[in-house]
Amino acid sequence: MSKRPLIVIGGSSERSQETMGAFQEFPQVEACRLYSKFSARPSSIETIPSIIEKAVRSSIYGRPGACYVDIPADFVNLQVNVNSVRYMECCMPPPVSMAETSAICMAATVIRNAKKPLLIIGKGAAYARAEEGIRKLVERCKLPFLPTPMGKGVIPDNHPNCVAAARSRALQFADVIVLFGARLNWILHFGLPPRYQPDVKFIQVDICAEELGNNVKPAVTLLGDINAVTKQLLEQFDKTPWQYPPESSWWKTLREKMKSNEAASKELASQKSLPMNYYTVFYHVQEQLPRDCFVVSEGANTMDIGRTVLQNYLPRHRLDAGTFGTMGVGLGFAIAAALLAKARNTGQRVICVEGDSAFGFSGMEVETICRYNLPIILLVVNNNGIYQGFDVDSWKEMLKFGDATTVAPPVCLLPNSHYEQVMTAFGGKGYFVQTPEELQKSLRESLADTTAPSLINIMIEPQATRKAQDFHWLTRSKV
Amino acid sequence: MSKRPLIVIGGSSERSQETMGAFQEFPQVEACRLYSKFSARPSSIETIPSIIEKAVRSSIYGRPGACYVDIPADFVNLQVNVNSVRYMECCMPPPVSMAETSAICMAATVIRNAKKPLLIIGKGAAYARAEEGIRKLVERCKLPFLPTPMGKGVIPDNHPNCVAAARSRALQFADVIVLFGARLNWILHFGLPPRYQPDVKFIQVDICAEELGNNVKPAVTLLGDINAVTKQLLEQFDKTPWQYPPESSWWKTLREKMKSNEAASKELASQKSLPMNYYTVFYHVQEQLPRDCFVVSEGANTMDIGRTVLQNYLPRHRLDAGTFGTMGVGLGFAIAAALLAKARNTGQRVICVEGDSAFGFSGMEVETICRYNLPIILLVVNNNGIYQGFDVDSWKEMLKFGDATTVAPPVCLLPNSHYEQVMTAFGGKGYFVQTPEELQKSLRESLADTTAPSLINIMIEPQATRKAQDFHWLTRSKV
Amino acid sequence: MSKRPLIVIGGSSERSQETMGAFQEFPQVEACRLYSKFSARPSSIETIPSIIEKAVRSSIYGRPGACYVDIPADFVNLQVNVNSVRYMECCMPPPVSMAETSAICMAATVIRNAKKPLLIIGKGAAYARAEEGIRKLVERCKLPFLPTPMGKGVIPDNHPNCVAAARSRALQFADVIVLFGARLNWILHFGLPPRYQPDVKFIQVDICAEELGNNVKPAVTLLGDINAVTKQLLEQFDKTPWQYPPESSWWKTLREKMKSNEAASKELASQKSLPMNYYTVFYHVQEQLPRDCFVVSEGANTMDIGRTVLQNYLPRHRLDAGTFGTMGVGLGFAIAAALLAKARNTGQRVICVEGDSAFGFSGMEVETICRYNLPIILLVVNNNGIYQGFDVDSWKEMLKFGDATTVAPPVCLLPNSHYEQVMTAFGGKGYFVQTPEELQKSLRESLADTTAPSLINIMIEPQATRKAQDFHWLTRSKV
Amino acid sequence: MSKRPLIVIGGSSERSQETMGAFQEFPQVEACRLYSKFSARPSSIETIPSIIEKAVRSSIYGRPGACYVDIPADFVNLQVNVNSVRYMECCMPPPVSMAETSAICMAATVIRNAKKPLLIIGKGAAYARAEEGIRKLVERCKLPFLPTPMGKGVIPDNHPNCVAAARSRALQFADVIVLFGARLNWILHFGLPPRYQPDVKFIQVDICAEELGNNVKPAVTLLGDINAVTKQLLEQFDKTPWQYPPESSWWKTLREKMKSNEAASKELASQKSLPMNYYTVFYHVQEQLPRDCFVVSEGANTMDIGRTVLQNYLPRHRLDAGTFGTMGVGLGFAIAAALLAKARNTGQRVICVEGDSAFGFSGMEVETICRYNLPIILLVVNNNGIYQGFDVDSWKEMLKFGDATTVAPPVCLLPNSHYEQVMTAFGGKGYFVQTPEELQKSLRESLADTTAPSLINIMIEPQATRKAQDFHWLTRSKV
Repeated sequence: MSKRPLIVIGGSSERSQETMGAFQEFPQVEACRLYSKFSARPSSIETIPSIIEKAVRSSIYGRPGACYVDIPADFVNLQVNVNSVRYMECCMPPPVSMAETSAICMAATVIRNAKKPLLIIGKGAAYARAEEGIRKLVERCKLPFLPTPMGKGVIPDNHPNCVAAARSRALQFADVIVLFGARLNWILHFGLPPRYQPDVKFIQVDICAEELGNNVKPAVTLLGDINAVTKQLLEQFDKTPWQYPPESSWWKTLREKMKSNEAASKELASQKSLPMNYYTVFYHVQEQLPRDCFVVSEGANTMDIGRTVLQNYLPRHRLDAGTFGTMGVGLGFAIAAALLAKARNTGQRVICVEGDSAFGFSGMEVETICRYNLPIILLVVNNNGIYQGFDVDSWKEMLKFGDATTVAPPVCLLPNSHYEQVMTAFGGKGYFVQTPEELQKSLRESLADTTAPSLINIMIEPQATRKAQDFHWLTRSKV
Repeated sequence: MSKRPLIVIGGSSERSQETMGAFQEFPQVEACRLYSKFSARPSSIETIPSIIEKAVRSSIYGRPGACYVDIPADFVNLQVNVNSVRYMECCMPPPVSMAETSAICMAATVIRNAKKPLLIIGKGAAYARAEEGIRKLVERCKLPFLPTPMGKGVIPDNHPNCVAAARSRALQFADVIVLFGARLNWILHFGLPPRYQPDVKFIQVDICAEELGNNVKPAVTLLGDINAVTKQLLEQFDKTPWQYPPESSWWKTLREKMKSNEAASKELASQKSLPMNYYTVFYHVQEQLPRDCFVVSEGANTMDIGRTVLQNYLPRHRLDAGTFGTMGVGLGFAIAAALLAKARNTGQRVICVEGDSAFGFSGMEVETICRYNLPIILLVVNNNGIYQGFDVDSWKEMLKFGDATTVAPPVCLLPNSHYEQVMTAFGGKGYFVQTPEELQKSLRESLADTTAPSLINIMIEPQATRKAQDFHWLTRSKV
Repeated sequence: MSKRPLIVIGGSSERSQETMGAFQEFPQVEACRLYSKFSARPSSIETIPSIIEKAVRSSIYGRPGACYVDIPADFVNLQVNVNSVRYMECCMPPPVSMAETSAICMAATVIRNAKKPLLIIGKGAAYARAEEGIRKLVERCKLPFLPTPMGKGVIPDNHPNCVAAARSRALQFADVIVLFGARLNWILHFGLPPRYQPDVKFIQVDICAEELGNNVKPAVTLLGDINAVTKQLLEQFDKTPWQYPPESSWWKTLREKMKSNEAASKELASQKSLPMNYYTVFYHVQEQLPRDCFVVSEGANTMDIGRTVLQNYLPRHRLDAGTFGTMGVGLGFAIAAALLAKARNTGQRVICVEGDSAFGFSGMEVETICRYNLPIILLVVNNNGIYQGFDVDSWKEMLKFGDATTVAPPVCLLPNSHYEQVMTAFGGKGYFVQTPEELQKSLRESLADTTAPSLINIMIEPQATRKAQDFHWLTRSKV
Repeated sequence: MSKRPLIVIGGSSERSQETMGAFQEFPQVEACRLYSKFSARPSSIETIPSIIEKAVRSSIYGRPGACYVDIPADFVNLQVNVNSVRYMECCMPPPVSMAETSAICMAATVIRNAKKPLLIIGKGAAYARAEEGIRKLVERCKLPFLPTPMGKGVIPDNHPNCVAAARSRALQFADVIVLFGARLNWILHFGLPPRYQPDVKFIQVDICAEELGNNVKPAVTLLGDINAVTKQLLEQFDKTPWQYPPESSWWKTLREKMKSNEAASKELASQKSLPMNYYTVFYHVQEQLPRDCFVVSEGANTMDIGRTVLQNYLPRHRLDAGTFGTMGVGLGFAIAAALLAKARNTGQRVICVEGDSAFGFSGMEVETICRYNLPIILLVVNNNGIYQGFDVDSWKEMLKFGDATTVAPPVCLLPNSHYEQVMTAFGGKGYFVQTPEELQKSLRESLADTTAPSLINIMIEPQATRKAQDFHWLTRSKV
């Protein structure tokens, strides 16, 4: 995560065969340009250390990002005189910058004057390890906050000031919004009406200057390391303490909305009808989730609804499909998290919550999980399709009208697939669960076994959807 | 395949949100440039027909290749006045060109004067549907020939003139080589010594002018549609009939080498020890392979050895990882072939021969196979790794020295994985086979059942390799 | 030109300093990708010959185009063991392909049945050196033809069958059009109404398969070397001779339109008022133009009107701004042509007809011309601006209203600039001419002097324009 | 300059004609990607304001750079409903960030402990308008400093602490170097031995995080706005005042070297032999240079030697070929500077010092200069070639051996070219000067005339070079 370099090392064909039709010959460095902060091929073995150093440094300095280093096949067997190599020490930790003092004062003033303030905590705050400072700020000033998907856990989701359960309401009526490492992209509806007040004042805290002012004209911009800037703000509020009145009508509105939303969720979660709905499933999962676990998730409704129910208590412990919504990343993320937990010997568990379609992108990685015996718990929330599927009977009914290749809608998957057997095929544990009791039991067993992976295939109502929304998650704002 | 356009339609973000951080916003058209013959986004709904027409046409005219058309998300819900659309009829079949007459004469003369002639039949010959002409040429002139991996089947592999079993010998000592749509890339060792005679005369037949002369200076180049050029050559040999003496020492050399290679293969195939080796497996598969089936394959040894044993009798019925050696394409190819067979109602079967590592790239596609109930037969030739794996006992022994994450070599996979259960998880048939008898029986059953897919997980000796080679397949020629 | 490779050799920074901020460090190979058929950097000195061979070959095989080869700075001083270099002989002449016989027959039939046939001779015909064949075809079949800007001279412009003077009319009413290496791009108004009949039948002759069918659905496509295909057509008309009736109403229409257009031009050319107009200027230039000279041209009206008056009698002797309309290429073209004439010792002259704005792009190349003492004749047709300028008096009048930086329109240039002094500054001859007599005299002198360059700065009416057009050259067709 | 956006607006073909072969059709946005911070095409007229806002903002926020916005031709004539446009106000001034306090302390400590300190003032300091702060720092701490080419003038070149005259010595023996917005690229010899001490301690002050640590491992990095960081350093030295002893041996060494170098220059400058050498020329120019003028320069020796003699007294008043060493930018820079001076009505003059070869790249821009009557003074320092040329007699001698195209070395230009006539051709003043007296007189006249441009063509010894160097400017450091 933050401060951890992300370098992809690629292998290309032998240099002497370039342009001849070599094995897997392709301009890789060029092909990676659009996807990376730095893309290069060392010109000789001697220059490998300095290229790697630059890739590592570029990856973690400034706004973090992936880098690509290409190693031609012929390098593998080349010899080099050690004295001709210019060795590079690893770079220093990323340089830290702060916002200018006058902007900090201005930001504090805008916050103090807010009628309906809101903090939004983004992935950038997690990368910057700003959790301590932001938590203090929230608590001292008694401000409501909202995390973005991967900003969850910077402050625990169950913090009393977290207004995630009233997300749309909070965004729509806030008059001052402080963004800590959160971009005003599609996830935050570009910061524009009708999802926001036309005259909302944004205070942007970001490490990337070019991000400031995207889509809106902010009231104040605070450029710098998010952790350092947060501390500057804290100092400001230390000098002249201030707190937002907890009994304001804004807090009342938010609390009411949260209460009614939570009631609606609880209502759904407590439905006894089978197959289960999303809320029932996540309710039971949440009950057993270890406080310090990593939650990995991908899917459509599975990821979106799961995010609202499953709580994160630690920063950088949620990994999901992210800004790009890329499917297929879940198992790789889970493996990485499990290896990290193993290396740190913390005993932390990894819970990987997958939609059935999402699992199909890279489900074969269970072989890797089993090979390395990583005690990951995979939950496949299975509605037989993307957004909506068919139950077995409807599927059979449909097949009377023709072959599946012609009559099955593209969003359907095969009903009642036994994804748990994909896990048992490689020696892990598998559970096929259809009731809350089965779900509870299988989760308990999986959590109890710290030596082996398991996959719980959770059958839900194929037509299950989210509860009614003020705005749909992906609703296009009128821009 | 040939004359079949390959168009990728991509969806990008809404145009009005470009540069704002839209959902999955990315310069797709630009990103696809390096990978396609034509990459474009229609500027309006009205221009979709002409862009699609151009993409289709670009894909099949000249050397075939993939094209990309990008459709922004907002197009999906836009309305258009039908009268403002300029509709395009589908383009005409690809234009056909021929070689110039003098070059044809020259080529015929060079062939007539060859002491050790060889034809190499490439993928381009298959794309050009030149099978009839090339077969006539081979038979009339009694010339030895060799197919490239995806040129297999243009003439049946069991044709008496096929010298595939003496491939290295044939390449190394031929004095005249006619390439029909085969490139002198790494697969053909660039056409250079030591894999070829320094003074070998190449006659290149190709649809792509820029391909002619790559890596070698050819004796004759025949630019044009490969089918048309083959017919021109045939006419030439019709006018003045000629045939290469079947009792030449060249034929003798080739036949002897083929005999000894085939004996060595047979020897390996008949080994009774268990686990089986590659040759035993493929020998039994080949015995039951329907003549008209599609053979799809990917993997390392599995693909390479399988290709030498499994015979193709029809053109364009072999699909493998191809020039780029891309893993993960097998199941997609198999599904496409099965859908084609279904559409044509030919009852043709699809046999998909996968290495265990290769299967791991996209094995989850068995869900698609089962959903559409395609009677594909998947063979996973399982040696517990890439090139080489461990058996269960050695694996356990190894784990005494540490955790798998630290002691297992990167080429190993989990021993005795039950890949067949990945199939049964979705309702297909699965077989775990360890002996020739089990293999024979499972194959027989799978072929008999035309209504359902099956996966046969074939355990082989984890240390099994190829028989000794004059040159390794990937051997780097000294350039 | 055709069959002449176009290779750009670029120098990049030292390989060992890559990514360090080396002098002029940049990814040149990548940057040239969009502009070239082949772009590469040799990986070592040893591979330079094969890269150059491939660049040369790629440049002239298939549709010709530019290639880029990048040479890192450190190569310049490296030593190499000659034995480790794989020398490459120069490639063979480009392979020649022909159209398929059935398509030739079909094309001949369509031509025979045409009521209003038209041939269009493009740059591709010139590159293919198809002049002899196309001329025979025109003369045997008595067909009207039209050259594209750089197709001029394939058949002499004064050929009786040339209908360039009735260009718009010819395009608009033809029912069958045969394109010889001419693309249906903006120059030919995309082949669409209202510039063409909706049901016009196109016969496309081209070396590039992907070009066929662009924008229209052609009646017949003839893929192959344009020279070879032309000969195939000729053979067809040799077998069954046919000619288009010279007394047809189509010929009559065209001849009448030509006559009226030529009369209008002559009328303009004979105007006695001063300053001269474009037609007067070009009329006098044309009178003295040597038959075998190279005509180079760039500019807006200067190039467009000049092209209609100045005649080419030889193929590949006209070089202008071409499809891209790139300004600044004229003097470079002129120098190249002059060096060629010098190398061939033909005594051919180069006449470079420049608009004043166009000359401004690279006028300093007169230094090169003078340094090498190349007897180029530069004509600057000077209207004090782009499309339109001011005369001296109006300019002064305008300056009363403010500073030139604020009041002068962006298309204006300084009135009465003495471009001829840019030539005399370097020792060449310069003429400032304002009357037909001065123009005639200066041209006569310039042509008489075969040992030195000259520049004739020809003042014309700043408001001079083209004669009225049915369609403006750049008129956007309603597509 | 700094805080001034650099946006290139390009025109592309009509959207509806894309892929059809439209006039100047090309993927411009893609082509500009490598050269710009932001490259985009508005998807509709309505989005133009937001795209322009983003381009402007991207250009000046963070490290400044060029941006590209592409406007399709059809936009020019489109109409739009004003209410559908989302207008954007101009962005706020760039956000300012500061270095973290601990790093500032550390930097101050390193500086205090330096035995041989050196400040290097780069272009970034000029862009950040850090002149006041840096000057105070230099003066308070009595530190020696060195400007980079475009860092000249941030502190006046004649400041007693400027050690530019001992540049190589200063770089080579400094033990602590503080870089203010100066990159360790080729211009600073990558910060590596033998041009630097192996254990020199670098303190990097930069706005760009990814720049920090390039090529060397710095002792301290100060990330932030260079002006803000400089003030932080100043505060540090205000709290605990310190100054570097002016009588240190380091200052002695530097002063001695400066004295000897200046003596050598003076010696060269005072040579009476004709033709003049570079030093004589620049000595006389320097004598008359107005203190507040803009100095623009490009060329090889002309730029390099001129930079050492011609003094800048104001920041952002020197514009030269820069990091890329791009020739042809001089006249454009001069015009821009003159327009700025005009707009500000400061009466500041622009002196453009061109090598003769450099002038050849865009010399025709004198037409623009004359059209707008900008009182620019162009000096062409004319040695008849690049690095070295021929005098008239040697040139004639050489021509006895053959034609100039075959015998003239590529670095030669035509001897005694009258570049001043290129200026007089457009009505400006021209001077051909061969002696110091003529130079003085022509300069005096040019400076006196504030209403018109002039060009002084200064003939120098064609074989003139720099004085002997410890290292050549472009010397490749052993990396």
